[in-house]
Amino acid sequence: MSHMEILVIGGVAAGASFAARARRLDESAHITLIERGPDVSFANCGLPYHIGGEIPARDVLAVQTPESLKSLLNLDVRTQCEATRIDRAGKRVEIRDLKTGQSEWLRYDKLMLAPGASPLRPNLPGIDDPRIFTLRNLQDMDRIVTATATGMRAVVIGAGFIGLEMTEQLQRKGLSVQLVELQQQVIPPLDAPMAALLESELRHHDISLHLGDGVARFEGNEAHVHCHLNSGKVLEADLVILSIGVKPDSELARNAALQLGARGHIVVDEFQRTSDPDIYAAGDAVETFDRILEGKTVVPMGGPANRQGRVAADHIFLADKARPYPGSVGTGIVRAFEAIAGITGWSEKRLIAAGRPYEAVTVNDNHHASYYPGAKPLTLKILWEPESGRLLGAQASGFEGIDKRLDVLSTAIVAGMTVEDLCHLELAYAPPFGSAKDVINLAGFAACNRRDGLVAHISELPDDPGIQVVDVRGKPLAEAFPAPGKAINIPFPTLRANLDKLDRSRPVVTLCTFGKMSYFASRVLAQHGFDVTSFSGGLKANVDPRTPAKLPNS
Amino acid sequence: MSHMEILVIGGVAAGASFAARARRLDESAHITLIERGPDVSFANCGLPYHIGGEIPARDVLAVQTPESLKSLLNLDVRTQCEATRIDRAGKRVEIRDLKTGQSEWLRYDKLMLAPGASPLRPNLPGIDDPRIFTLRNLQDMDRIVTATATGMRAVVIGAGFIGLEMTEQLQRKGLSVQLVELQQQVIPPLDAPMAALLESELRHHDISLHLGDGVARFEGNEAHVHCHLNSGKVLEADLVILSIGVKPDSELARNAALQLGARGHIVVDEFQRTSDPDIYAAGDAVETFDRILEGKTVVPMGGPANRQGRVAADHIFLADKARPYPGSVGTGIVRAFEAIAGITGWSEKRLIAAGRPYEAVTVNDNHHASYYPGAKPLTLKILWEPESGRLLGAQASGFEGIDKRLDVLSTAIVAGMTVEDLCHLELAYAPPFGSAKDVINLAGFAACNRRDGLVAHISELPDDPGIQVVDVRGKPLAEAFPAPGKAINIPFPTLRANLDKLDRSRPVVTLCTFGKMSYFASRVLAQHGFDVTSFSGGLKANVDPRTPAKLPNS
Repeated sequence: MSHMEILVIGGVAAGASFAARARRLDESAHITLIERGPDVSFANCGLPYHIGGEIPARDVLAVQTPESLKSLLNLDVRTQCEATRIDRAGKRVEIRDLKTGQSEWLRYDKLMLAPGASPLRPNLPGIDDPRIFTLRNLQDMDRIVTATATGMRAVVIGAGFIGLEMTEQLQRKGLSVQLVELQQQVIPPLDAPMAALLESELRHHDISLHLGDGVARFEGNEAHVHCHLNSGKVLEADLVILSIGVKPDSELARNAALQLGARGHIVVDEFQRTSDPDIYAAGDAVETFDRILEGKTVVPMGGPANRQGRVAADHIFLADKARPYPGSVGTGIVRAFEAIAGITGWSEKRLIAAGRPYEAVTVNDNHHASYYPGAKPLTLKILWEPESGRLLGAQASGFEGIDKRLDVLSTAIVAGMTVEDLCHLELAYAPPFGSAKDVINLAGFAACNRRDGLVAHISELPDDPGIQVVDVRGKPLAEAFPAPGKAINIPFPTLRANLDKLDRSRPVVTLCTFGKMSYFASRVLAQHGFDVTSFSGGLKANVDPRTPAKLPNS
Repeated sequence: MSHMEILVIGGVAAGASFAARARRLDESAHITLIERGPDVSFANCGLPYHIGGEIPARDVLAVQTPESLKSLLNLDVRTQCEATRIDRAGKRVEIRDLKTGQSEWLRYDKLMLAPGASPLRPNLPGIDDPRIFTLRNLQDMDRIVTATATGMRAVVIGAGFIGLEMTEQLQRKGLSVQLVELQQQVIPPLDAPMAALLESELRHHDISLHLGDGVARFEGNEAHVHCHLNSGKVLEADLVILSIGVKPDSELARNAALQLGARGHIVVDEFQRTSDPDIYAAGDAVETFDRILEGKTVVPMGGPANRQGRVAADHIFLADKARPYPGSVGTGIVRAFEAIAGITGWSEKRLIAAGRPYEAVTVNDNHHASYYPGAKPLTLKILWEPESGRLLGAQASGFEGIDKRLDVLSTAIVAGMTVEDLCHLELAYAPPFGSAKDVINLAGFAACNRRDGLVAHISELPDDPGIQVVDVRGKPLAEAFPAPGKAINIPFPTLRANLDKLDRSRPVVTLCTFGKMSYFASRVLAQHGFDVTSFSGGLKANVDPRTPAKLPNS
């Protein structure tokens, strides 16, 4: 029994998890939870879904109340209270009651900082228009619910995870939505081709996309907000949602001279200790370890926040038994209407920017046995370290089974698995659930083929007229949806009989719909002495992403 | 260019995969595929689903034809041909054409045996009744389709994977179905409690279950087959489906004096080579390596068959680059109506039978965020090695997300992960896909709590009147669905204030609905000096498996 004085600043994911675990480990500690807002431990990831009515009942989002935390966990919860100052030498925190304006000092033996992160609100002309919203808590959500109605026009700025969720939910509520994103794609953490399905799905649902464009200023009049974009476009809106990212709420830590990272996040060690050994921090305000490559990373997500809170409590109360936080891989998933895409680990663009060597393949398959009703195509990209074959990242997009593939690959990545290991993962198979060779196995096969020199891939068709591009799709398809440039159509089944139509002295690139037949063709040609490269991922020219992919099975 | 003569016996999963990979690796080889039946490379896992009409079109099950294999892979396919003899010294196989009755010898440089396995048909009285069916190929399927019609009564013998699929599909076609199983549970590879959901789902769909009972003999008259069970029960049926397991078709290998395992499976090395280095074998007829514990195992499943075929082809054509088959973990999944259950790795009963030390926990949660519509409860059991914490197996049951958890855990198992590693898997989370702390993380937490001595679990309530059983559910629930035996009801929120109602000198067992609140209570009591054990997995007395589990969140 420690009878320790534990003070927690921030009562949502990291703070609440910390407090719950602390109580589980020590009945005698006095645990005080300080929360600036009126709610504790609410389901912040659910906020967009209530705005669109997909989660109809508001009260399911208020997971706990101060009263329930008292009765379940014997916590002393103070909402609408703000921590204004840390006196590290005196081991006390100044708390201001936002309802009364009065301040007092609370003593601590151990302090947990879980302040979270605030939505960015850049200092643009017109930004203070009350019709420009951000979304962090239940009150923000309530304001947006009140401000929105069928028939209105909304502009969402920022096509990240929250931006896409908000876009879908506002559309669901009957608003017409325009989506603005500075990058040339939605969900910037993804490599652009892996975001293409989300973009086509958004357009399919009449969302106007303004990619590669940002907002320069806002102008409000009585009726509308006008969003002036960098491109000169002006979007007229009844309301604007700003979802361009978050910044850590680390002022309290900064003022207490705790060590901060380059982007203002609180620096912590593997037990979530800040530069002051009696002060811990967890959640969206901290910097954490990259679990794949050396270095630090920031992963403002609910999962890591919850688990970091737990690690900190273990370190305080379990002593030697406490296990370090192993760092994050950065797993994210988003649904836009029916399309789903996600990432785990490093993307190609991030590897390029960091100057890290890598290789990548993209494969296509259905999410379960093609012959079982309801099969939906999905695309999977994996990235690995050339020397070792160790996985560095994966991305998937499609309509079903995306979360499953990301979860398996996230697990494989933290286990340090190689692409060879993917070949023999033994995944659950019955026709409604998977395939005898899952798309993850196929990605492993493709990567190993490449490592073994059995196939060379390119991801863009060549312009060089000296290269022979061979389209091995069937004739009707090749005619109806011709490959770009000057391709020779030799349907794969006739390839062996038509080798004399190709010039052995010139390089060949093979292409098909999904990249598989093109690989087959490249094997035939390579063995007949051709210098051949397969166009990876396929043309997909005629592919409806909602109907099962017709892939060659052999 | 090898110009090798490759002969493949068996043209379904392992044989077809082998032949396709061989062709990809060597254009010059002459590859002959011998198949006893009229079809090659058909979707055998899809057969039950066509019988029930869930896969309406028969032709989607015929994945390839001899003609398509010729045009895509330049294979010489001979269907309705049987390999009758191997002359190992002469490196040739005698092939009998079942259509003409004529035989010829075919030479080989390398021979692949992929004969598969046949459904068991025990030598019981009356077994030859033509209304007693087994299911292996499209012709068996067609016979069952013809023999079944709405209103008929079917008896399915054997409640394994195929037995459950057939039960559901016959019911779907409008038959009434009785299911007989020798074990006291369905899906014998599962531990009994993990099969309970499937059993309740089958009963919910009016399937009569006869568990712990086997068939002694059949008696047919003009109208019906009577199934006489060991218990004395007689089940009257219009038709019977026998699905009690398979035996390897290894006679050809046996006659050629190739080494066989104890149960008649062909023995192969890690490159799928039999005891004759020019003869390979793969698929349901072979014995393979257990990937978790030492020793051999048999996994007659489509996934391993396909991948073993590939490994063998690589060994022939890639020389040093060939990678060994790493063995199997044995992953299986089955759906019975809406309920789903599956396993990867070792079960508790198998560990007990092998005398291996293990520990296990069972946890409950919803398959995605509880507050997001459509959340369905699931139960997850994990097993590990006590010393190292290394995972040995996992089982899951529920209505959604079962395949995902099995796939992650199968991956974790082959990676050699420990229960500690499960705590920090970073799985894809947005409310439609998961939870901030996935049930896999929770299983890791529970296992670590146990390893750290923070909680002790029991899986059966004690009879000993000296033990105080404390039911920490709310009063209304405890009264409406009382715990078995003499439990004291102290709702968890009132526990801290009522410690004096318990006798500190006597052991305490805590219980609740899902096992979580009971764990919370055990932490409170342990810290107040009680000798306390938590009832693992919970009572679930009032739980409808189709509605979201209401779990304490803190």
